[in-house]
Amino acid sequence: MAEFKLHAFEQSGHAYRVALMLQLAGCDWEGVRVPFFDGVTRTETWRETHNEMGEAPILEHGETKLTQSGVILDYLADITGQFGGRSPEERREIWRWILFDNHKFTSYYSTLRFLLAFQKTGETEVVQFLRGRVLAAYGIVDKQLGHADFIVGERPTIADFSMAGYVFYPEETGVDVPGQFPAIEAWKERIRALPGWQAPYDLMRF
Amino acid sequence: MAEFKLHAFEQSGHAYRVALMLQLAGCDWEGVRVPFFDGVTRTETWRETHNEMGEAPILEHGETKLTQSGVILDYLADITGQFGGRSPEERREIWRWILFDNHKFTSYYSTLRFLLAFQKTGETEVVQFLRGRVLAAYGIVDKQLGHADFIVGERPTIADFSMAGYVFYPEETGVDVPGQFPAIEAWKERIRALPGWQAPYDLMRF
Repeated sequence: MAEFKLHAFEQSGHAYRVALMLQLAGCDWEGVRVPFFDGVTRTETWRETHNEMGEAPILEHGETKLTQSGVILDYLADITGQFGGRSPEERREIWRWILFDNHKFTSYYSTLRFLLAFQKTGETEVVQFLRGRVLAAYGIVDKQLGHADFIVGERPTIADFSMAGYVFYPEETGVDVPGQFPAIEAWKERIRALPGWQAPYDLMRF
Repeated sequence: MAEFKLHAFEQSGHAYRVALMLQLAGCDWEGVRVPFFDGVTRTETWRETHNEMGEAPILEHGETKLTQSGVILDYLADITGQFGGRSPEERREIWRWILFDNHKFTSYYSTLRFLLAFQKTGETEVVQFLRGRVLAAYGIVDKQLGHADFIVGERPTIADFSMAGYVFYPEETGVDVPGQFPAIEAWKERIRALPGWQAPYDLMRF
């Protein structure tokens, strides 16, 4: 049995964040498919036995069972000694971007993608509202990535993996990253070049 | 000069989270008003000198300048030795709820309130979409608060203060907390009973 077990599904960038960390840190891990699109995470039973927040991913490591990708990433950085902060200041800086990511950068984008690619709502007022919020958040990140190679400095950290959650998915959302956010596009290339990197649908085939 | 300086504005529940912590932990602090509604946080100058994420609050403590209320709360719990986690497990549990709060519980509610109370959009598709998301997140928290007095157990922590950010504001949002979420309503009463508690517009008069 692998050391780490990741409950996830391949369409979830929240899960991809963690799969990417496990992969790039060279962990011994395996995936367990959560049949999200069958509605399992919305059932009372699943919430009681797996996650009261009704979300994937979940990481199992021995007796420890964790949810919330930000907490899982922080845990894995501690356990593996890789991609974490090296000082209290750097750890705070990493959390600062993970929070911004959860509140705005990934949050708005993942909802926009969900509506367009899976709920297939087409171009509604809600879609336009979310896209406006995405563009504002992406603008802030693009500026930050104009100053440094990675989100908190010159080396990749779990803050980058958090923010990379949805940026490699192919679904169309009407957000033109190469055209409008060149620093994000260049950062994506740097992430893609990390040894062992795989795209979401390749990394999470289970 | 006070030991802590909080840059904030009274309509911001993101700031109230921190003001509440400073107040309940008995810190020596003062507020500095950020003229948010004049658009200052959206200017390039302010972003360069204060916060590249374009947000309040900001906490100043000596040479340390912090943004993102979750990071500030964690910092204050460390500095004061109050309302933080007492074990790695409890600290992870606190972060787990702070992340859920930033992603869903406070995030959707604060946006809903902003549209209705300040942008005065009236009942749009976007308002209805956000209210649906609020109800789902509130349902999860209501269930959690049915098991324990506070969000991660039997004593208040910074996770409660994070989640209390917007729940004491009086603006009308069409979310009936007493009627639909009795456990949240009871938790609000417990927070309100903590020694030194003040409502947002009383605590942030500066």
